[in-house]
Amino acid sequence: MSSHPHSPAKESVIDLLGMLAYGELVAFDRQAIDARLAPDLRRRAQLSTMAADEIHNYRQLVARITELGADPQAAMKPFVHVIDAFHDSTAPRNWLEGLVKAYVGDSIADDFFREVAGLLEPADRDLVLEVLHNEDHAEFAVTEITAAIADNPAVAHRLALWARRLVGEALSQAQRVAAEHDSLTLLIVEGTGDLAKVGELIKRLMQAHAERMTTIGLNN
Amino acid sequence: MSSHPHSPAKESVIDLLGMLAYGELVAFDRQAIDARLAPDLRRRAQLSTMAADEIHNYRQLVARITELGADPQAAMKPFVHVIDAFHDSTAPRNWLEGLVKAYVGDSIADDFFREVAGLLEPADRDLVLEVLHNEDHAEFAVTEITAAIADNPAVAHRLALWARRLVGEALSQAQRVAAEHDSLTLLIVEGTGDLAKVGELIKRLMQAHAERMTTIGLNN
Repeated sequence: MSSHPHSPAKESVIDLLGMLAYGELVAFDRQAIDARLAPDLRRRAQLSTMAADEIHNYRQLVARITELGADPQAAMKPFVHVIDAFHDSTAPRNWLEGLVKAYVGDSIADDFFREVAGLLEPADRDLVLEVLHNEDHAEFAVTEITAAIADNPAVAHRLALWARRLVGEALSQAQRVAAEHDSLTLLIVEGTGDLAKVGELIKRLMQAHAERMTTIGLNN
Repeated sequence: MSSHPHSPAKESVIDLLGMLAYGELVAFDRQAIDARLAPDLRRRAQLSTMAADEIHNYRQLVARITELGADPQAAMKPFVHVIDAFHDSTAPRNWLEGLVKAYVGDSIADDFFREVAGLLEPADRDLVLEVLHNEDHAEFAVTEITAAIADNPAVAHRLALWARRLVGEALSQAQRVAAEHDSLTLLIVEGTGDLAKVGELIKRLMQAHAERMTTIGLNN
């Protein structure tokens, strides 16, 4: 059935795309709400635009799930609980927390999907690479965060704690996904080679995250 | 200064575009929230997509305001209060109310802007006509609303009352805009010819609205 020996099962791919799709739908929803925390209309519109882009990605993912013969709602459903739990536990209390969340979350998600894309067949790989976030988003977040820290260095410590909490919550939900969804775990374990390789993947993600935090002054 | 005798003052055009732009930004925000009322993920994504399209329009309007040499934030600011007041007084309590609001509001707004576009010079006219809502949105809303009424005819009466309230609130906020913003009032009065013509314009908008309500079974 598969086009090469390590090509992942269709079921795993649908799971992955379903998880991504629901992630996009919720990212839209949460960023749209977080936009209200903006100090002015220009910034509010900027985060609203970032939110709107997630819906564009959502639509592409849903189109691919349908193309693979699956029902997008059914594909998303197993991930509703865990993704909602992440967002419920990490609702930003102010504009900067919202931006840090968008930046940290989008960056780790992009790194993860860039790695996973390499395990997929061309059509799915291209799609997953296409729904990575726009560089503009990261630039906007970095500019805002570094300006806020320059303005008041005390916010760096608070935001660093916040970023750590975001990552902690994300890892704990990721563990739940791994435990509950054998097909996804299998996709990654078989794709990377073995469990040790999965450990290395997580290490790479955390390393890249730490470097980003240092760059924007949130390593304290 | 003007290219033909009745071309509106630049200040009036900037006011109009500012009002439209803030209207789009808030429409995004409210529809994003209303999407949460959807009974399933497919419908939720549909309203989220409608919301995302408003941001696309917002960006075009802001680009034109900037092109005209004005500050988009300053152009929007005078309309924040009145547009927020409309939405605060018409927060949908359920999915169908949200859809009726999107449908009624978008349709009247589109009719209004189609009329006003005719009073503008080509560049602004084309832009205003371009940010009219996608036909898909109306079709989706009409399908959902008529299906819900077919399913339970009792909802028609409730939704008809709701639609009437929406129009009442919209008219009362429109009167405030007219009273507070001479430049906009002037644009319309001078563009249409006289106050009687403005009355006819409002009559046409209400007539088209009534016909839409009859079509979807909300005329009772």
